[in-house]
Amino acid sequence: MSSLHEQLVVIDGLIISDFSRAVFEDMRKGGLTAANCTCCVWDNFTETMRNIAKWKKDFAANADIISQVYTTQDILKAKAEGKTGIILGWQNTSGIEDHIEYLQLFHELGVRIIQMTYNTQNWVGSGCYEGTDSGLSDFGHDVVAEMNRLGILCDLSHVGPKTSEDTIKASKQRVAYSHCLPAGLKAHPRNKSDAQLRFIADKGGFIGVTMFPPFLAKGPEATVADYVEAMEYIINIAGEDVVGVGTDFTQGYGQPFFDWITHDKGFGRKLTDFGAVINPEGFREIGDFPNLTAAMEQRGWSTARIEKVMGQNWLQLLKDVWGA
Amino acid sequence: MSSLHEQLVVIDGLIISDFSRAVFEDMRKGGLTAANCTCCVWDNFTETMRNIAKWKKDFAANADIISQVYTTQDILKAKAEGKTGIILGWQNTSGIEDHIEYLQLFHELGVRIIQMTYNTQNWVGSGCYEGTDSGLSDFGHDVVAEMNRLGILCDLSHVGPKTSEDTIKASKQRVAYSHCLPAGLKAHPRNKSDAQLRFIADKGGFIGVTMFPPFLAKGPEATVADYVEAMEYIINIAGEDVVGVGTDFTQGYGQPFFDWITHDKGFGRKLTDFGAVINPEGFREIGDFPNLTAAMEQRGWSTARIEKVMGQNWLQLLKDVWGA
Repeated sequence: MSSLHEQLVVIDGLIISDFSRAVFEDMRKGGLTAANCTCCVWDNFTETMRNIAKWKKDFAANADIISQVYTTQDILKAKAEGKTGIILGWQNTSGIEDHIEYLQLFHELGVRIIQMTYNTQNWVGSGCYEGTDSGLSDFGHDVVAEMNRLGILCDLSHVGPKTSEDTIKASKQRVAYSHCLPAGLKAHPRNKSDAQLRFIADKGGFIGVTMFPPFLAKGPEATVADYVEAMEYIINIAGEDVVGVGTDFTQGYGQPFFDWITHDKGFGRKLTDFGAVINPEGFREIGDFPNLTAAMEQRGWSTARIEKVMGQNWLQLLKDVWGA
Repeated sequence: MSSLHEQLVVIDGLIISDFSRAVFEDMRKGGLTAANCTCCVWDNFTETMRNIAKWKKDFAANADIISQVYTTQDILKAKAEGKTGIILGWQNTSGIEDHIEYLQLFHELGVRIIQMTYNTQNWVGSGCYEGTDSGLSDFGHDVVAEMNRLGILCDLSHVGPKTSEDTIKASKQRVAYSHCLPAGLKAHPRNKSDAQLRFIADKGGFIGVTMFPPFLAKGPEATVADYVEAMEYIINIAGEDVVGVGTDFTQGYGQPFFDWITHDKGFGRKLTDFGAVINPEGFREIGDFPNLTAAMEQRGWSTARIEKVMGQNWLQLLKDVWGA
């Protein structure tokens, strides 16, 4: 591990792994300071509460290596204690069903990042695989306002283009694509056009960059260097102060999980086919995070840029939105 | 208002009113420092979460006169700020359904007092109107242990005698009848025998005294002096350090509410008939709380005893159980 990597605050804006002691240990191996860990995808209110209850057990059982993050201070504390801070996040608003008042309960339980829609239309708006995106619904506007009030980050990664634009305009807080790639390098419903990337940056928003192979130009043949190249592509559009990491590690999951996330509501119509999910060479597992820093160094990035992209930019965004 | 009453920390161990701005204002009128306010009776998980979500809105909308209590420090803070501290409490374990892990979520949301059963049998044990009380179930033992771990007070007021005894023995924390009356003054399934009162006190437990008229010897003819007499009856058995107030004010509710609470699960078989619910003369409403202090003074109680019974005993119990 390079001495630079050890010094960094490393924040991953999206992990949706099969969370277990093994994954948490790999987070430590990778020198990961904090990660936005998904606890709601297609899940309804009760299922999401149950997922969070499981997380609380995990926090207790693995308190030697992970801790729950409620504020950015908790992230710095995790760094100081040699633990990985877990930010509870959602990739859908299905967890509140049609009850906006549940947002406050989930906020109190530590949910700090919520994606407005997951792939298809819900009460709030449309997803990136929906045929027609009619934009943020009236209920969606209420949800954005309440998330703004509470200090929950609006995530737009899997959100449709119109709903994303509406949310960027409606939100009084900074918003994010927590994990996306540029359509300029590969056309894909999940990837964002240069105009979209420029728009969110112009509005004070944020872009976390994923390395999920189906969305990379080279697919399963990509390397960690290709991932850094994609980051640089976005930095060249948005600047180096609003770009970060959002890997989308699915570590530990197999085909049933990919079937579940690629069907509407988990079991409905098929939305897309990922093919083989093989992470970029050199960055196959969370424990390989030091290789990402090394790839940035090899590409000739300055230490200042590496510090920002690896974690400081996320830290600033979260502090701005969370208020602490 | 007597100057003594104004000085007191006044804690009501049970209020199940139709909570509204009017009730909160009456709490202030009565000089109430804190109250255990019921937010789960027959309610299931989702209904209880919705009730708590409503409370969070109420806290925001009435922040000038009420505040949520998570610790006994919050109670003292409410006193200092001239507000009434609201302790969220349950009269049933129906809110966790069959998922013990939900207890931690509710604890984080501020639920600090839970009654093991409400009138009839549930997953945990039996209620006071159940034909046969087979005692605390194995699941119930797990629930007690988890409540002990989290620091949630076990309430036994509506619990059956065998389940109560089992809980008193199983709990590593102090437990309470938050609102009960002595069977020695009136035989009733909800009232506790001298032996029961002695047993809980001997085991370090606590007795909050209700003035709910159907359980008072004089029924709707009772006065606040009769209520103080009932308290003294219990003090003579348990001592003055473990007795407090637990009114059971149902302010604002009418017949549909009483029908709901007197039928199993809200709509099942009829369990009991309260008749007319007319609170004791002089203590008809929460705003009349100063009259309770006056009645204690009239009965010749020492200031030290009044301070303890009106709030200090509750404060000590809650600190012991909550840990802060």
